[in-house]
Amino acid sequence: MEFKEQLSEYGKIINRNLSSYMEIPSKENRKLIEAMKYSLFAGGKRLRPILVLATYDMFDSRANNRRSENYSFVMPYACAIEMVHTYSLIHDDLPAMDDDDLRRGKPTNHRVYGEALAILAGDGLLNYAFEIMLESALNQNNTKTHVDVIKEIATASGIYGMIGGQAVDIESENKDIDLSTISYIHHNKTAALISVSMKVGAVLAGASYKDVKIIGKLGRDLGLAFQIRDDILDIVGDESKTGKNVGSDNSCNKSTYPKIIGLEKSNEKVISLTNNISSVLDEYNSTFLRELCTYLMTRES
Amino acid sequence: MEFKEQLSEYGKIINRNLSSYMEIPSKENRKLIEAMKYSLFAGGKRLRPILVLATYDMFDSRANNRRSENYSFVMPYACAIEMVHTYSLIHDDLPAMDDDDLRRGKPTNHRVYGEALAILAGDGLLNYAFEIMLESALNQNNTKTHVDVIKEIATASGIYGMIGGQAVDIESENKDIDLSTISYIHHNKTAALISVSMKVGAVLAGASYKDVKIIGKLGRDLGLAFQIRDDILDIVGDESKTGKNVGSDNSCNKSTYPKIIGLEKSNEKVISLTNNISSVLDEYNSTFLRELCTYLMTRES
Repeated sequence: MEFKEQLSEYGKIINRNLSSYMEIPSKENRKLIEAMKYSLFAGGKRLRPILVLATYDMFDSRANNRRSENYSFVMPYACAIEMVHTYSLIHDDLPAMDDDDLRRGKPTNHRVYGEALAILAGDGLLNYAFEIMLESALNQNNTKTHVDVIKEIATASGIYGMIGGQAVDIESENKDIDLSTISYIHHNKTAALISVSMKVGAVLAGASYKDVKIIGKLGRDLGLAFQIRDDILDIVGDESKTGKNVGSDNSCNKSTYPKIIGLEKSNEKVISLTNNISSVLDEYNSTFLRELCTYLMTRES
Repeated sequence: MEFKEQLSEYGKIINRNLSSYMEIPSKENRKLIEAMKYSLFAGGKRLRPILVLATYDMFDSRANNRRSENYSFVMPYACAIEMVHTYSLIHDDLPAMDDDDLRRGKPTNHRVYGEALAILAGDGLLNYAFEIMLESALNQNNTKTHVDVIKEIATASGIYGMIGGQAVDIESENKDIDLSTISYIHHNKTAALISVSMKVGAVLAGASYKDVKIIGKLGRDLGLAFQIRDDILDIVGDESKTGKNVGSDNSCNKSTYPKIIGLEKSNEKVISLTNNISSVLDEYNSTFLRELCTYLMTRES
């Protein structure tokens, strides 16, 4: 299958499953569910769940035979990770945080539903992510493996992962920070969840301990490269393509790679990380992931 | 053991365990951990974890023999529930929500650490609660029972529990609402987590399905009575005892029982719920829980 076709197929499967997870009865709490859905279906790239499925496929040699069965096996975690990512964006965009009005070209959650409901929609998505993962683990024979996977995701999302990175990011505003701090922020705020997405795919496909380690490291590199590319796009990007206000990082004094090591060196860093990733992926024979990586690093939005 | 002595002993064990859960290495994310600890150790009554332990003891006939072993078995869930409760208070107090400056006589989290870090400290506590529960489930032989317990807690905390109740509470501000809406709010925002605390204690002590059902219902009644008593204290309470600004519900147009059915009928409701609870507890022979119930319903803070 062609790369773009495969990318779109992954996206569709994920959207279909996310929709079905969000088909939940609501009555009094209707507005809350609506606010959660608004951000979940606001046009995200689905990068993290796609990485779960693609890494799963890469390790699952019998993928073509048991694909549909398998996806039902990994899907709860793929969807839960997208919910965790989405809640983090809702909270990040709040006036007390980045104070963003636009996200993917649409008004941010709090601009539509108000700050209070946006905070709760974020809380609701984080909590719901755990609910669907736990439900999945209960329905498996090898519950322990699944609980292990949930624990990995929880760690990557928590104070030693995404939330930790976000806290240091907030504290670093309007401060001169060094490369090690910005590296801490990017590794935790962005790369931890991207890395765990690939790890989860690998673990559930039965990859060896050594392979899971290699993929986890590769995921961190990919996450770092992805975030630096994001920082670059905030400077040179086209607002109509990124769906965000260009220069918004600068206007709220965000720490970024280009600000610390310059645009040229940031570009070089993205290229060198991408080359590393590609050479590791060569050994795993995954055309899709290699093309995805190139696609992400040359993207305009 | 005397009631007050037992209450204080439960509280001490819980505080000791919460402290040890929060003894976590921190470096870059130091401020975030500090903010989480600030609210976790700001003088809470520890009602929910006490209910976990007390209900556990009530069903565990061999309590005196294996108490220390047993507590290590239920403690992760007792502490996690307190973390979930604490995160909800941090988010509730935010300017976008109830905009409270004081909680238990101390400045609220965002007054000390700023809104951004308060939001993240809340997120961090919710996420960390799942981390410690998952870690516990992984270390048990009967992982499925433990995953079931975590799932129950997740449901009680989520969009069909605490977060759902909080969302409807926010939406109902400045509106004339009826008794069924305020009942929905109290049952979900407050009673769901109190009820699940008792259920968790019962399940982990090996109580029968029928008993768990009875205790779950009793917990909902207790939660409702507790919240109505809270509403009453907001009107007639002594600020120096409650540690909150008296009348703060009224000033931000919160929906409360006294506002809808009057102070007298609210008091009657608390008394009738308390009597129901006591008569059920009579059959279980738990002096401590019966006294706790009376204590809660006559409390001044």
